[in-house]
Amino acid sequence: MKVCVLLSGGMDSVVAFHDALHSHEVVACLSFDYGSKHNAREIPFAKLHAERQRVPHQTIRLDFIDSLFQSDLLKSGGDIPDGHYAEESMKQTVVPFRNGIMLSVATGFAESIGADAVVIAAHSGDHAIYPDCREPYMQAMAEAIRQGTYASIQLLRPFIAMDKTAIVRRGVELGVDFADTWSCYKGGEIHCGTCGTCVERREAFLLAGLPDPTVYEQTPALPEIQ
Amino acid sequence: MKVCVLLSGGMDSVVAFHDALHSHEVVACLSFDYGSKHNAREIPFAKLHAERQRVPHQTIRLDFIDSLFQSDLLKSGGDIPDGHYAEESMKQTVVPFRNGIMLSVATGFAESIGADAVVIAAHSGDHAIYPDCREPYMQAMAEAIRQGTYASIQLLRPFIAMDKTAIVRRGVELGVDFADTWSCYKGGEIHCGTCGTCVERREAFLLAGLPDPTVYEQTPALPEIQ
Repeated sequence: MKVCVLLSGGMDSVVAFHDALHSHEVVACLSFDYGSKHNAREIPFAKLHAERQRVPHQTIRLDFIDSLFQSDLLKSGGDIPDGHYAEESMKQTVVPFRNGIMLSVATGFAESIGADAVVIAAHSGDHAIYPDCREPYMQAMAEAIRQGTYASIQLLRPFIAMDKTAIVRRGVELGVDFADTWSCYKGGEIHCGTCGTCVERREAFLLAGLPDPTVYEQTPALPEIQ
Repeated sequence: MKVCVLLSGGMDSVVAFHDALHSHEVVACLSFDYGSKHNAREIPFAKLHAERQRVPHQTIRLDFIDSLFQSDLLKSGGDIPDGHYAEESMKQTVVPFRNGIMLSVATGFAESIGADAVVIAAHSGDHAIYPDCREPYMQAMAEAIRQGTYASIQLLRPFIAMDKTAIVRRGVELGVDFADTWSCYKGGEIHCGTCGTCVERREAFLLAGLPDPTVYEQTPALPEIQ
């Protein structure tokens, strides 16, 4: 099956890309620059992985998100909160219907280039905060995508029932170098180690019992595991 | 209910806007400049209607569509075909998943500004060609939008069971001046009168038994009605 992969340059989508290379013909990877504080850090990794595998990569700019939407993830928003990923404070980093927008654009692009499916790396760890990562949303969106395209394009979500720890394990199986991925929402020179995504990243490696190659400004505090 | 209306500046969405003003609180109108040949003709009418009603209006640029998608509706595509709207040749003017993209962006924007619903003017006449105008698509998309937002945003499609003739009648009831709307896909100085959307526009007025205020370069040929 010809697939188009949503590739942000984060851990999950980089593993999803390598997983898709294993099972499908990946005809394109798409990154979205929507004005988040960390887009400039993560998208070069997306490009790098696509180039290494000689898969065409496109970065699509969605400038209207930063200028019109409310979210602290965006350059126009407030500071990124510190703390665990599942905490209530992380909700302020949600970009409203971001996955819906990215999936819709990817669907139109996929139909334009003759692809059969779109792959998204949404996983069970995202469910706590993001309504547009949960399976009831994905099921409805998959049906909308199938109904709304001539080619009856499919929405593949290979990690929807997996957590980030399982994704790390799958990535190691597939030979993914996680040093070439980016998580930190703050988008600084190196991973901060204190924001929710840094804590989540560290936790996934610890729970998987695998070495974390990330250089953090401050080692993420995870008292219940360490 | 606070609603955000997709307002292209075409006949259908201008009537949907006035219909929504009648039933809801319209908190914003959104137009999308996606690089079609006629965006520059229709969007000024969208702006005009919103301004007259003192409703905030935003034009959102989706430049990636013209540069990456395949469709003769786009500046990057081939010539707009002449003939009746329902003809096979009109399929080449379909922009893949365009409604999915516009609805997703509108949903994220609606959630950002605290709206409860998004309004789209899709109608039964669109069904022949556009998969992303049909009710099975709309039902799935409505569910995706509801599931994918904190506010459980609703997707309103007031004209889904109406044809364009009924929309013209509704517009006249609401006092809409159709001279201030644009249909022609060719996007010239005046309506061409030969493309599918001009033929469809003319046909709607004739079937409604109402005067057509449009100045056409060539009067649309509709032998079965005239």
